Amino acid sequence: MKRIDSAESMQRFAREARAAGRRIGLVPTMGALHEGHVTLVRRAAEESDAVVVSIFVNPLQFGPGEDFERYPRDLDGDARRLASLPVAALFCPEHTDLYPRGFETAVVQDDLSTRLCGAFRPGHFRGVLTVVTKLFGIVQPNVAFFGQKDAQQVLMIHRMARDLDLGVVVRAVETVREPDGLAMSSRNRYLSPDDRRRALALSRALRAVEAAFDGGEHRGDVLRSTLRGEVEGEPGVRLQYAEVASLQDLRDVEQVAAGSRALAAIAAHVGTTRLIDNVVLGGRGRPNAGLF
Amino acid sequence: MKRIDSAESMQRFAREARAAGRRIGLVPTMGALHEGHVTLVRRAAEESDAVVVSIFVNPLQFGPGEDFERYPRDLDGDARRLASLPVAALFCPEHTDLYPRGFETAVVQDDLSTRLCGAFRPGHFRGVLTVVTKLFGIVQPNVAFFGQKDAQQVLMIHRMARDLDLGVVVRAVETVREPDGLAMSSRNRYLSPDDRRRALALSRALRAVEAAFDGGEHRGDVLRSTLRGEVEGEPGVRLQYAEVASLQDLRDVEQVAAGSRALAAIAAHVGTTRLIDNVVLGGRGRPNAGLF
Repeated sequence: MKRIDSAESMQRFAREARAAGRRIGLVPTMGALHEGHVTLVRRAAEESDAVVVSIFVNPLQFGPGEDFERYPRDLDGDARRLASLPVAALFCPEHTDLYPRGFETAVVQDDLSTRLCGAFRPGHFRGVLTVVTKLFGIVQPNVAFFGQKDAQQVLMIHRMARDLDLGVVVRAVETVREPDGLAMSSRNRYLSPDDRRRALALSRALRAVEAAFDGGEHRGDVLRSTLRGEVEGEPGVRLQYAEVASLQDLRDVEQVAAGSRALAAIAAHVGTTRLIDNVVLGGRGRPNAGLF
Repeated sequence: MKRIDSAESMQRFAREARAAGRRIGLVPTMGALHEGHVTLVRRAAEESDAVVVSIFVNPLQFGPGEDFERYPRDLDGDARRLASLPVAALFCPEHTDLYPRGFETAVVQDDLSTRLCGAFRPGHFRGVLTVVTKLFGIVQPNVAFFGQKDAQQVLMIHRMARDLDLGVVVRAVETVREPDGLAMSSRNRYLSPDDRRRALALSRALRAVEAAFDGGEHRGDVLRSTLRGEVEGEPGVRLQYAEVASLQDLRDVEQVAAGSRALAAIAAHVGTTRLIDNVVLGGRGRPNAGLF
């Protein structure tokens, strides 16, 4: 595994790989790698000849008061973890390399970025779309892999790649969970033992809504109440949103039409840690986790 | 010259050209081609093996009340004109191909897009940056050519290509003028004979400010008055702006520092036709018309 720390060297690596006919698979991350990331790498290796993992804690996607400063960073530990995986290059650029003085361009989706997490994190998706466009330009991937856990993110990136003709296939990979159901996240390490137990309310709520959906309950309001009920019953957990939303525009659905799918998504603070999770109702077993 | 009318075929053409080691030069246009475009094509041919000219009247960059509907369209005439030039492909996509239902992504530059023309054409540069990003994605050029006449446009695209790591070299090519000084523009054909004569006030003003600058006058206010004076003296010409602006941020300069450059730019309505023109003070004889 080659460690590359400048955009220029990364571009050279990518150019040479493409010229040699190799298919590049990109796994963009913010580091603090866990089993979810490992699964993304393995999926990338199945579909490409050169897997590139990027590690960059992107300041643009953190709002004021969010956890940019304390976001876990462990580049050496991450590099050791990746060394035993089929990774051709680890790309870990400096902030000033990606955002030099005079940087002024952004990629936006005005409507989608106001939905779900976007309503609570203004500017977040603008930062995500902008950095991912840059990573696509620098790494020149044929295909890029994102976790379903960040469903809104991967839906928006998928849309962006199509809208802007970026020439990158976007894949969503199913969420990896701890044995007790908690979705893997770099932020789980913020949780105290008590919080860790309380955090199970999210995956429990999603399982409940999935069971209701599979049992024939397709009314949006009823599904949303089921979601909310599980989380609001848990002390120490503050619900931010619980939605059953359209996969097209991320707005609340009134009714999930027969044979179609919807996104059940939830965000909550457990102690001081903000967690998100989701399932695609009717999406189990489909490619791209049923998201698109 | 191959005529290509779908994004998919264009991408295939580009992929094959790149795979064969050909360097692609893109000249994006809205058609109604004139000698200015011909110069762009010739410059592109000097620097690339496969020149692609795109013709697309981009609805996103026209505001309400602007001339999208009546913008001159003459695809067959344009194709005949290009046939005698060193052009490998003419790309003329349909609107629905570039902007399918559900299209929602945009590329923006919040600050630069409020300057000069941007102050009078809200949304214009958002439309320009978005379509150019798409054209770069579809045509995969190594290098792209834009006229200096649209100085703000090419400055912003140059910045965007760098900011988003699009991997495209952006070139600005000097404005081509009629023998009497009028900058070539597809919109010149809107001018009545009287308007055509009055329109000379713009290039006359720019020559006057250039002479003053070369004579040692570097104060922003004085240079701006010189610009304004020439245009405001012309009946039937309504000045929209006359600026002497920094090439970095397009804001008014107080003083052009010794050895440095500035953009003298002007926009005016002549009859019902909006015209723009500019010169780079201190930029003559430099590559990229002194713009960057």
